[in-house]
Amino acid sequence: VSVLSSAIIVYRLPWTWKCSKLLMKFIHAGLNTIAMILAIVSMVAVFEFHNARSIPNMYSLHSWIGLTAVIFYSLQLFLGFAIFLLPFAPVRLRAALLPIHVYSGLTIFATVIATALTGITEKLIFSLKNPLYNASPPEATFVNCLGLLLVIFGALVLWMASRPHWKRPPEQNAKVLRSIGGPPEGTEAESTMTDGSNADKSELRINSEAARKQNLKLDEAGQRSTM
Amino acid sequence: VSVLSSAIIVYRLPWTWKCSKLLMKFIHAGLNTIAMILAIVSMVAVFEFHNARSIPNMYSLHSWIGLTAVIFYSLQLFLGFAIFLLPFAPVRLRAALLPIHVYSGLTIFATVIATALTGITEKLIFSLKNPLYNASPPEATFVNCLGLLLVIFGALVLWMASRPHWKRPPEQNAKVLRSIGGPPEGTEAESTMTDGSNADKSELRINSEAARKQNLKLDEAGQRSTM
Repeated sequence: VSVLSSAIIVYRLPWTWKCSKLLMKFIHAGLNTIAMILAIVSMVAVFEFHNARSIPNMYSLHSWIGLTAVIFYSLQLFLGFAIFLLPFAPVRLRAALLPIHVYSGLTIFATVIATALTGITEKLIFSLKNPLYNASPPEATFVNCLGLLLVIFGALVLWMASRPHWKRPPEQNAKVLRSIGGPPEGTEAESTMTDGSNADKSELRINSEAARKQNLKLDEAGQRSTM
Repeated sequence: VSVLSSAIIVYRLPWTWKCSKLLMKFIHAGLNTIAMILAIVSMVAVFEFHNARSIPNMYSLHSWIGLTAVIFYSLQLFLGFAIFLLPFAPVRLRAALLPIHVYSGLTIFATVIATALTGITEKLIFSLKNPLYNASPPEATFVNCLGLLLVIFGALVLWMASRPHWKRPPEQNAKVLRSIGGPPEGTEAESTMTDGSNADKSELRINSEAARKQNLKLDEAGQRSTM
């Protein structure tokens, strides 16, 4: 979960906005690949553990949701690699698929948290026998706290990932602002990021309050940076 | 969950865009109030069930997450009522709090789904004794399917709620488009809704691609509808 969340919020850290977009994509893809490897390792471990103890596989809701999440995650990783990392997909296709990529990434993340919570619930019920889970032994309280922290952690990551002003400023726009003398990031650029879902579209056109404000100035010089 | 999701997506149904904003708010508030009443009734039922069977209350992760969700939900309902429904809050405050209201609403919704999944997991383990849950009796498979459908349902609601072009068009903007002769909703107005989080800000200013396009025409007549 921590590697997965790092992969999600890596675009949201202001100190990374100075890195090139390609480097950011490599970090995002790399972290997700590590998370995928960890997911596969842990799934193999679970199946071997079940087989060793003669516990049936894939009977629980936890396992069903978890497997669904892993299947969609591998699909997400493959499509992300093919479309956003390899240089073959046209910009228009990337712009159209980015909102879907972002949505499915965040939904998979939320599903992984839900899987963890059902897994924790199962484990607590199966492992705590003397005293029982419902007698609230210290272990139960401790693990409940962990579960609640997981919910809070997930909510924080989703908050970071969905805040428009924590969005990486579009490159072309940053260039325009820089050439005009405005800051490449910060307050003036913030309103360029109010658009919640189409970062890559800004590669095609500049459509923002900041750019519009600049236009009012540029209009006087007969220029239109929005076209 | 169904009432809660109806309350969330009520703003996303194109046929409701013709209703006044106030009517929409009343429907949204009314559905959420019904959901809150149902939540309270079900919580009372759970506590009475536990007390009748001498099962300890509030020991499980399911109960902890559920109570957290209900506490935040009542807070959300109270603040939503005080700020967005009562006519006292200034427009600036509403605009600042709307993204938080939307985020916390969707996060509470996701948390409620997670609570349901942990509850289902608990119930399956506790209720299926002969045969056990891990023997995959038909009931287990059936309820697992229900759980998975709940995840899919939650993902669909979050998809509907986060799509910019399913957003209710801002009223002032619709009026401008109508006065120009453009359609009050539909393809041309779609790009006005790419802004993911500040619908109410558009009450303060018009900042959209469609408005900008119109400006290019209006510029010739020496008018600026964006100001």
